[in-house]
Amino acid sequence: MKLSVVLSTQSAQFQAATFKGDLETNLARIASLGYQGVELAIRDPKLVNYDELERITKAHNLSVPAIGTGQAWGEEGLSFTDPDPAVRQAAIERIKSHIPGAARFGAIIIIGLIRGIVKPGVGQAQAETWLCEALQECSRAAQADGVRLALEPINRYETTLVNSTAQGRDLIEKVGAENFGLLLDTFHMNIEEPQIEDSIASCAERIFHFHVADSNRWYPGAGHLDFSSILAELSSTGYQGWISGEFLPLPDAETAAQKSIEYLMEILH
Amino acid sequence: MKLSVVLSTQSAQFQAATFKGDLETNLARIASLGYQGVELAIRDPKLVNYDELERITKAHNLSVPAIGTGQAWGEEGLSFTDPDPAVRQAAIERIKSHIPGAARFGAIIIIGLIRGIVKPGVGQAQAETWLCEALQECSRAAQADGVRLALEPINRYETTLVNSTAQGRDLIEKVGAENFGLLLDTFHMNIEEPQIEDSIASCAERIFHFHVADSNRWYPGAGHLDFSSILAELSSTGYQGWISGEFLPLPDAETAAQKSIEYLMEILH
Repeated sequence: MKLSVVLSTQSAQFQAATFKGDLETNLARIASLGYQGVELAIRDPKLVNYDELERITKAHNLSVPAIGTGQAWGEEGLSFTDPDPAVRQAAIERIKSHIPGAARFGAIIIIGLIRGIVKPGVGQAQAETWLCEALQECSRAAQADGVRLALEPINRYETTLVNSTAQGRDLIEKVGAENFGLLLDTFHMNIEEPQIEDSIASCAERIFHFHVADSNRWYPGAGHLDFSSILAELSSTGYQGWISGEFLPLPDAETAAQKSIEYLMEILH
Repeated sequence: MKLSVVLSTQSAQFQAATFKGDLETNLARIASLGYQGVELAIRDPKLVNYDELERITKAHNLSVPAIGTGQAWGEEGLSFTDPDPAVRQAAIERIKSHIPGAARFGAIIIIGLIRGIVKPGVGQAQAETWLCEALQECSRAAQADGVRLALEPINRYETTLVNSTAQGRDLIEKVGAENFGLLLDTFHMNIEEPQIEDSIASCAERIFHFHVADSNRWYPGAGHLDFSSILAELSSTGYQGWISGEFLPLPDAETAAQKSIEYLMEILH
């Protein structure tokens, strides 16, 4: 299993030339720590120069295993479950617009908070139907380019749409697309899953991507999760994907990224 | 260690005769499950007939180890850290008004969300100062009647004021009152504490009350917390208080209360 790390949005507002300098610096740091990949948050692909992105990541020997899409929710309010059909359609088009870039890097497209948070006046069942339909449309579009989508179950405090792996598996059934699966995140699992290892086993080949953070959302090793057991279980599912660190930049981003890779390498080797 | 359970607010809106029937029924159920105590949420003591409350609890041989006060926040918006000084003072007066009832039952007064959630325009440091001053005033008032106050560290998603036991210990230092301590809750600790047992040890004799819920906020045994280890650590601090079940009423309140006491009795005996 290869190790990547998420660039926190503070340092990776990856939308324009303004942050190119930061991106170069950050990628150099990440590569020097020993990571083989970097997971990037991209709000809008049309603001990204993919040639330039490919040049920089290649220069540092970094893969891009996954692309986060949540900034389109956080900064523009796009969502699969907004009561306004125009907003829902814009969210679908935005995700589709990630397909060429994802295909180029062999990256998974992450469906995080762009699924939305159920708004007042929208019934839970209605939101779930919209979510399913949006995922079907996006998965179909991505299939042609061999791109996969991974929805992240997120704990109850951040959304009411798909908190647990059990709900994620139900959604996979409903969406019915081979290229739609799950992104599991240990911080969220610590809150939502009765037994983390059992939940990993239950998703097996539908685990498309994997986030690590400890129980307190600090880097792995800073909390009480048993990563030896968790990663052994993940490995036993036949998972061939990435282990991507997404944690709070505490005490600072670089220290956290360094502590995480040291700790994980110890476990994995 | 004795076992109590929190009456969920849905069934325990304990403010008027309207719910007296429910209260009788619920207390009978709780006692029949083997609990020795019941933790009650009281929004406003002046709406409570304490003679009647004493009669009912005694009839069922139930102690009242602690009184929850959060409804005054949830339903009236009272808080120690509101920018409006009149609201802050009303919150202080409300907590003081619990003292006679708490003294009568030997109950601890819980400081949960009545501490408030920092509102826009209020600085974190200012809120912390208001919180400390309010706790000093309330602790002083309670001291005369031998009543203790226990503040509950609550996870980051519910408030920014005192999430962890470390922050709780800092606050104890600042408040400087012998009758002010902490209420530790295993659900919140699972998210906030690097190592739950270490955090319990670090609070030792300042643990005034203890809530149990499993990692997913279901009854103990439904998640992945190691209650054998947690309760052994609690016991080793010399804790003589109650273990009070506060968990989601799932699959329903009675089943949850029953599963919890069965599981905990197995561990404790």
